[in-house]
Amino acid sequence: MDQCIDALHDAYLDFASGAAVTRQRSDTLVPSGKSVYGLKTMDGIAPRLGVGAVRINSDIVTWPKIGDSYRRVKVPAAPGSRYTGLILVFSIETGEPLAIMPDGVIQRMRVGATSALGTHHLARADSRTAAIIGSGWQAGSQLMGLFAVRPDIEVIRIFSPNPENVKTFCRAWSQQFNRELHAVDSLIEAVEGADIVLCATSSIDSLFEVEHFEAGMHVGSIKPPEISRQCLELADRVCVHVGHGKPILTQSDDLIVPDHSSGRGWSISDKFDFAVCPTLPELISGAVNGRVKPQERTCFVNDLGLGLQFAVVAGITMRLALSAGIGQDLPTEIFTQLEHP
Amino acid sequence: MDQCIDALHDAYLDFASGAAVTRQRSDTLVPSGKSVYGLKTMDGIAPRLGVGAVRINSDIVTWPKIGDSYRRVKVPAAPGSRYTGLILVFSIETGEPLAIMPDGVIQRMRVGATSALGTHHLARADSRTAAIIGSGWQAGSQLMGLFAVRPDIEVIRIFSPNPENVKTFCRAWSQQFNRELHAVDSLIEAVEGADIVLCATSSIDSLFEVEHFEAGMHVGSIKPPEISRQCLELADRVCVHVGHGKPILTQSDDLIVPDHSSGRGWSISDKFDFAVCPTLPELISGAVNGRVKPQERTCFVNDLGLGLQFAVVAGITMRLALSAGIGQDLPTEIFTQLEHP
Repeated sequence: MDQCIDALHDAYLDFASGAAVTRQRSDTLVPSGKSVYGLKTMDGIAPRLGVGAVRINSDIVTWPKIGDSYRRVKVPAAPGSRYTGLILVFSIETGEPLAIMPDGVIQRMRVGATSALGTHHLARADSRTAAIIGSGWQAGSQLMGLFAVRPDIEVIRIFSPNPENVKTFCRAWSQQFNRELHAVDSLIEAVEGADIVLCATSSIDSLFEVEHFEAGMHVGSIKPPEISRQCLELADRVCVHVGHGKPILTQSDDLIVPDHSSGRGWSISDKFDFAVCPTLPELISGAVNGRVKPQERTCFVNDLGLGLQFAVVAGITMRLALSAGIGQDLPTEIFTQLEHP
Repeated sequence: MDQCIDALHDAYLDFASGAAVTRQRSDTLVPSGKSVYGLKTMDGIAPRLGVGAVRINSDIVTWPKIGDSYRRVKVPAAPGSRYTGLILVFSIETGEPLAIMPDGVIQRMRVGATSALGTHHLARADSRTAAIIGSGWQAGSQLMGLFAVRPDIEVIRIFSPNPENVKTFCRAWSQQFNRELHAVDSLIEAVEGADIVLCATSSIDSLFEVEHFEAGMHVGSIKPPEISRQCLELADRVCVHVGHGKPILTQSDDLIVPDHSSGRGWSISDKFDFAVCPTLPELISGAVNGRVKPQERTCFVNDLGLGLQFAVVAGITMRLALSAGIGQDLPTEIFTQLEHP
């Protein structure tokens, strides 16, 4: 996580200066039985690491209603109940493919590292109490990122609607970091008096509301709907990841997705204009201020992923794997050709 | 080639009806030493074949001046002097990866098949004489496509600026098809009296000019600059592949490409508005007319490639390879994951 944060920090500097580039995410959708098939791709080039990368998700997607809220659920429909997400890494010196890797672990590491950079610039330096909302896959990397940028944090409370998951999460991560984590029974119990609140859920409705938002608090979100529009309007400072707004969506005419949901997977009824917000590269490069006063309410929103994040995190993962002798060696020549493409 | 043409025909029908989808090509560019590194991607889904595909080119590109004209030249910089171009094929039922294949052969087959569909609808049915301008990789599949849609063609003349290449080309393909091919010494000798002219060069300047364009002639081009603007204006009917205009271009601020050249690789000085032209899906679905009168001058221009073409041609190639037992079996599970992406 430390390496991810450092490498992403450098990449955002390069992005701000125009040296690193990234192509806006695209989603291409068709019906597949009663579900939706989505081919999602994003590309990026990190010149400092000498690599370009393409991230590909080949997803079977459903939008079930769980309790009162809709969720976007990917179905592990590949053989062995598995998901299909790949990152291909290429050399910008020779063009050759350097690595192919699954995107699952890298996906959460880049979200955690990105949120951590937001927390670093927006949360109070003297933060002592934190809350994590969610106890799943993404919550783990939010915790890793939090420890990396605010090592002096003293109290961490965990809440999600599923108490069993919260217990399992606390047990696993307490052990991992040798730090106490407090499972709590309600969202209000988790966030009351917290200096930092990190939302890491799969909800496509808002869950962090104005009554939770205290002066001096920093709230992070792994995707826009988690923080309500009213909170974003109340905040003294809202910073987004990129401010691109939305992916390039191409879908077949006969596709039906739930009314309340864009192809992206979250509510579009509760609009907030993220395009006017400062972005993380601007924050990191110093073009805009981070937190200025202790009593400010601040938000960081991962609005849209970038291919550049995958180029960076897959690039350093590849180096680590090579030096650790991890992975399978596939002959480069089966992925290259003599024919002029 | 017959199978490519049939499958693409069906896919363009599905595209016209809104069932098949494709994402606009994108080019992401950064400097790489004295060259340019380009990461080019395009996605498409062909529901009729049950597959989605991503085509990726990871190119080292230069723009040398050869004689009086600039060319866009990809350098085979991967180990063993090889190029890097890949197509990944996925199942739209399970999301799983079904095949990875090099794009070189498929790239020219889809261009040849696409041009052939244009020729089928635009050239005179009683065409007897054809000219192919170019003697390289793409010229071969133009010839295959021509034989597929106009089997009664009697005279075929080949010209390119390199007489040695022309001889080699004629020898190889005469043998392949057991048909005579005539190597000629000038462009004018090739096109004079021809019913069909197919341009298949790497030139980024125009080469087919008004003085060559006779009444009743059909001219095809594998990319826009080959046919001069004046010819396109003179034509009674110009049909383009998609009319998208241009790829989504993202490039680093410090990138320098030749003044006369867009990232796409051809001259932008000699503009013609392809956006107003009918497209191949419209032609195939009958939304617009093909050739109506024998004396019409017609043009077909491959203006921009589509991910859909690769989904289709890679999809049928995969089936053929499987039934022929060709290819290497890689375990699906190294390209899938248990982690939620």
